[in-house]
Amino acid sequence: MRKIAQSISRACAFSFGAILVASCASPSLSSPSVSEPLVTETRRDNMFTQTIASLREAVDKRRVAGVPVPIPADPGGGYTHEQHKQNGKTVYEAGMLYELTGEIEYLDFAADILADYADLYPTLDLHPEVKPSTPSRLFWQGLNEAVWLVYVSQGYAAIRDDLSDAQRSDIETNLLRPMADFLSEGSPQTFNRIHNHGTWAAAAVGMTGYTLDDRDLVDKALYGLDKSGDAGFLKQVEELFSPDGYYAEGPYYQRYALMPFILFAQAIDRNDPDMEIFNYRDQVLVKAITATIQQSYAGKFFPINDAIREKGLSTNELRYGVAIAYDLTGEPSLLSIALQQGSVVPTPEGRAVAEAIAAGEAGPFPFKTLQLRDGPQGDRGALVILRNGSADDDAAIVFKPTSQGLGHGHFDRLGLIYYDNGDEIVADYGAARFLNVAPKNGGRYLPENTSWAKQTVAHNTLVVDQRSQFGGDWRLAEERPSEVLAFDDTPGASFAAAQITGAYDGVDVRRVVAMVDRPGGGSYVIDIVLGESDGTHTYDLPVHFKGQLIETNLPFEYSTDLLVPMGDDDGYEHLWKTAETRVVPANAHSEVSILVRDQFYTLTLATTGEATAYLTRLGANDPDNNLRNEQAMIFRTQGKSTAFASVYERHGRYDNDEEVTVFSGSSIAQIDIHEREGIYIISVSPETTNPIMVFVAKESGESSSHVVRVGQKTYKWQGPVGLFASSGPSRNDKSGGELE
Amino acid sequence: MRKIAQSISRACAFSFGAILVASCASPSLSSPSVSEPLVTETRRDNMFTQTIASLREAVDKRRVAGVPVPIPADPGGGYTHEQHKQNGKTVYEAGMLYELTGEIEYLDFAADILADYADLYPTLDLHPEVKPSTPSRLFWQGLNEAVWLVYVSQGYAAIRDDLSDAQRSDIETNLLRPMADFLSEGSPQTFNRIHNHGTWAAAAVGMTGYTLDDRDLVDKALYGLDKSGDAGFLKQVEELFSPDGYYAEGPYYQRYALMPFILFAQAIDRNDPDMEIFNYRDQVLVKAITATIQQSYAGKFFPINDAIREKGLSTNELRYGVAIAYDLTGEPSLLSIALQQGSVVPTPEGRAVAEAIAAGEAGPFPFKTLQLRDGPQGDRGALVILRNGSADDDAAIVFKPTSQGLGHGHFDRLGLIYYDNGDEIVADYGAARFLNVAPKNGGRYLPENTSWAKQTVAHNTLVVDQRSQFGGDWRLAEERPSEVLAFDDTPGASFAAAQITGAYDGVDVRRVVAMVDRPGGGSYVIDIVLGESDGTHTYDLPVHFKGQLIETNLPFEYSTDLLVPMGDDDGYEHLWKTAETRVVPANAHSEVSILVRDQFYTLTLATTGEATAYLTRLGANDPDNNLRNEQAMIFRTQGKSTAFASVYERHGRYDNDEEVTVFSGSSIAQIDIHEREGIYIISVSPETTNPIMVFVAKESGESSSHVVRVGQKTYKWQGPVGLFASSGPSRNDKSGGELE
Repeated sequence: MRKIAQSISRACAFSFGAILVASCASPSLSSPSVSEPLVTETRRDNMFTQTIASLREAVDKRRVAGVPVPIPADPGGGYTHEQHKQNGKTVYEAGMLYELTGEIEYLDFAADILADYADLYPTLDLHPEVKPSTPSRLFWQGLNEAVWLVYVSQGYAAIRDDLSDAQRSDIETNLLRPMADFLSEGSPQTFNRIHNHGTWAAAAVGMTGYTLDDRDLVDKALYGLDKSGDAGFLKQVEELFSPDGYYAEGPYYQRYALMPFILFAQAIDRNDPDMEIFNYRDQVLVKAITATIQQSYAGKFFPINDAIREKGLSTNELRYGVAIAYDLTGEPSLLSIALQQGSVVPTPEGRAVAEAIAAGEAGPFPFKTLQLRDGPQGDRGALVILRNGSADDDAAIVFKPTSQGLGHGHFDRLGLIYYDNGDEIVADYGAARFLNVAPKNGGRYLPENTSWAKQTVAHNTLVVDQRSQFGGDWRLAEERPSEVLAFDDTPGASFAAAQITGAYDGVDVRRVVAMVDRPGGGSYVIDIVLGESDGTHTYDLPVHFKGQLIETNLPFEYSTDLLVPMGDDDGYEHLWKTAETRVVPANAHSEVSILVRDQFYTLTLATTGEATAYLTRLGANDPDNNLRNEQAMIFRTQGKSTAFASVYERHGRYDNDEEVTVFSGSSIAQIDIHEREGIYIISVSPETTNPIMVFVAKESGESSSHVVRVGQKTYKWQGPVGLFASSGPSRNDKSGGELE
Repeated sequence: MRKIAQSISRACAFSFGAILVASCASPSLSSPSVSEPLVTETRRDNMFTQTIASLREAVDKRRVAGVPVPIPADPGGGYTHEQHKQNGKTVYEAGMLYELTGEIEYLDFAADILADYADLYPTLDLHPEVKPSTPSRLFWQGLNEAVWLVYVSQGYAAIRDDLSDAQRSDIETNLLRPMADFLSEGSPQTFNRIHNHGTWAAAAVGMTGYTLDDRDLVDKALYGLDKSGDAGFLKQVEELFSPDGYYAEGPYYQRYALMPFILFAQAIDRNDPDMEIFNYRDQVLVKAITATIQQSYAGKFFPINDAIREKGLSTNELRYGVAIAYDLTGEPSLLSIALQQGSVVPTPEGRAVAEAIAAGEAGPFPFKTLQLRDGPQGDRGALVILRNGSADDDAAIVFKPTSQGLGHGHFDRLGLIYYDNGDEIVADYGAARFLNVAPKNGGRYLPENTSWAKQTVAHNTLVVDQRSQFGGDWRLAEERPSEVLAFDDTPGASFAAAQITGAYDGVDVRRVVAMVDRPGGGSYVIDIVLGESDGTHTYDLPVHFKGQLIETNLPFEYSTDLLVPMGDDDGYEHLWKTAETRVVPANAHSEVSILVRDQFYTLTLATTGEATAYLTRLGANDPDNNLRNEQAMIFRTQGKSTAFASVYERHGRYDNDEEVTVFSGSSIAQIDIHEREGIYIISVSPETTNPIMVFVAKESGESSSHVVRVGQKTYKWQGPVGLFASSGPSRNDKSGGELE
């Protein structure tokens, strides 16, 4: 058991508890208490007053209790780590309170802490648990040191003018300047790196530079150590965001990376207004904030790549992001995000947000069907989001024909997530990590993050020969982004198509995902997965579903008294095989119905070849119990090529308050897949309306024209995909559409 | 796949969808949308207006669409079943709307539906899927028929005076009177049975009697078919509730049973006010309503016995219950429950609730530490609830030394559930059933309800020799209620003790559960389980925990490549054994820490004998995939007697918005268990405060005096349990307590 510094740690935990209760104003979502309406109303009237009151209470408690400044000892999640993190925030918060209230005790409090650090810092060598690649002194990695300085430099800026010369000299000479030097000249490999650690370092150094009026530090931060512009903040802005504001590592890291970008940009905007930093690259920093919001469902970020699933719109970073974006744009829809966040930041921008909300100016945030192009030039694939409405809990599909996303990327090219009704229906595991939970590998990524979470089978995308994409080599994968073939955001008939080549030798994989109006309400999610090769392969389509399996016509036989793993490697070794079917004939009509909370969902599926279906449970070969217990089904075919055509739909209702249950089952009478002259023809036939036709042409030119006759009807379209739904032809059908 | 009457069913599903959206006013809890504050405010101002508007919209839609009155064909959850259920409610709702608005179309609508039923009913023989023990015609079981008549008789009462003589005669002669006769004289085994089915039948017949001014029907309903009083409603009130308002089957069925009790009681109160029905048995019906509320956590009922876990305070039955209880008592705390329910019932009582809420009269509902005595005389054990605060998400322990709870009872005598922070920490499986979900065994109890959910190992209570209590025979179990030995509700040092004899031949089982203030905040849950016998037995203590196991010092070895079940029967056959320890020495200090949402919990445990610990996953021998996948740990000892002493505590925080993680681990330095002269002495030693001492005497007399000397201290107490916490002596320590 972890017993390091236990008595101190415990005392800390208790005071932390009080602090957090005070500073974390958002009420628990899981148990709506009767007082919630009152809280909500108060919050709406004066969120800023409440923020400041909470902050004052929290900071006052720490002031009374005294602030330990311990000798650095622990890695992430440990006592000294958390205490230093906390102290950095305390300096910031005391500074903000001084700025707002002018009360001298807050100035003194911040100054006292800084004086303690000015005593400590010069005595420190590298941290005893230092990660050698990122030198640091207060923390085990340089990243935390940069974050600390971003907070502290802001807190210091708020009190600097009212300190004595002796205080200023002590703090700047012994703490701020050496730390800024250490994070820049002393850590060139981080400081010059185009990566979120580099952005934090640049922000820390640059913001300190502005505070100390040190142009040298500022210029290094803006243009790199050699001030050439080959590194530094501007280069980071250029390289790390796509023209649509997408960040290659995905929304979890985008949220984290945003913070230094927008805080430093604010400082630049104040000190060097001529740079018009917020207009840089067609306002890409503002786009990055709204793109982050778009990459969420029911308040949580899409957990693609190495993501902690709990993170969402209420994170501290997004509270700053929303306040700054509102300051820049005055966009009323951002206010509703702030309302959802439940509190505002203690800055002038936070105050403006609270006042606008109190004035009733909030409008709904328009969640959209869109593609966020990936790559600095927007030509390295895209993250595609299809939605059937603008609310944050309307049905949504996340489709992932992106680039790799650097070292935090997963091998899930063309992966899919399906949300509906506020719930995940077909889900992504996220990262195998318990953030900062010391007993779990020091809070760092767990070994199962590599052996499971990153592997292709851990995602909802095609696995060829039970191997992960690109042989699990992310550098190789980085060279071959996905290719988006088509994107159409027509409401009621939206779709996207994409392909990957090179992920598997000699196998091309294409996927078409569509969201089409369903007769009687809601949407069909139509998912077509094609694997094509000259050689024979095994094709697995995993579906990581949520809820409870209710009914299926698949002839599953359950392993009732013995479980063994599905395979030996590439993630299969972690899957207990709980059920298996005998061979299901080609083009059979398979249905699987599940219950997720209060709604039923049915997956209707057909395959061109014979298929076997499996049910699995995660947890095999997990000697430290690091994995969550999750379920999946896997559909397997064998042959040169394969096509899976799936339709997901929501139906019925399981209402326990009214005690009404309606289970309707699939509304799809038939799914047909044919191939004719290089064109896959998929017809999805609802029981009560005309078929939905999807055509997928091998010829992927955007302007290529296609004409296909099926039965009595002729279909014409341009581009690699034609979609013809009963709700009318899709927008890409510019040349006439369905003809009798 | 279920294809019965599919096209009709689907049409029904869609219109249902619209209806439910309209009639189910409570907003989704899982995804707080930005518009929630506004909705909440509107609701608070005019919940009743909103209820009526929603009802009008829903009923109007049905009126326009037309109401099918199909030939009965389907069992529970099927189309005809749900349609008839819906129609009964429609008659009721149209009647209420007519009463409130005087608009003639609602009268006509209700009358038309009733006329259709008056045509249909005389043509019906028994239902084709009838459950032979409960004859019925519209539905597969008589219970649904009685519920239907309860609704319909109220709807009919609202329109009766304004119908033509011919209409009245048709409806009464062909439908209401024959149905009332069928449910009384035609179903004596149900009607005279002291059971919730009997209550529904009595209510249906009695309420119809009042409406038709038929004293004969009323008297049969009140006093039984022979009017002797040996059966009927009054007898039901006497037999089915304890003096504290506890219902032997538990809160899930209590909720359901409440409805006919309170609706019929209302009718009695209006028509026979001299009976003072609501004062009957010291106002037991009102007590039953508040007792039902007390048996909930964060809005959901304790899922003891055969319970559907989704049911809670927002269920329709509780909405009526709260409105009627408020009408009777004017108790402002009930208004906060109504606020939480999100809507009010369309009755004068519902209107009064809405008006009082709008007038700002709601007060918090005081959730309490209490025991709800079981049995008509209150002498058949009790359900004990310990809480560390009055909010609905403060920590709570449910301790179950009750009677069996009839056929829906589980073999979980002395079972325990632990809630905290709005979450289940140590949980009960509830029933293995998907209510009304047709593909799951017609929505009825699943075979696994018997083979798993009712078995002792499915609960958090001692299992002797891997067998269920009373050999799994509920009638035998019904003869031997638990015995409550002590109960003390002192805040900060509350506890209860109880024992069972006869559940296992030659083995007595005692359990003491205490909730004691924890230094630094929160509570320790102290749990002492004693098994005593002259022969040698195996003692298993299962802990069905939630969340993710984070850290333990138990030497678990995980089964990484092969899983087999824990046993062959009594529920063990459903448990995959995922990990097992080598033998842990007697009195070892074992710790297990878990993460549940954003909080850490640690269980610290000691046993008097050597122990082995297991981790399990539910799902073995489940050929139809009927079980949810849940985890548990099982502590096993062997010998003549055994003692398990466990302490649960919450600590630290896992805050992903602020990115703060604090994991402190157990704050218990040591747990000691000794036995001396028939007294178990358990000392629980926190690291920073004096030990908490628990004494459990074999002598169970309430007034027996005990004196024990431990080290330098002498402890004196009365009764079978003495508890000495640093926060002061407990209330039962009347004679001096801890002495130096």
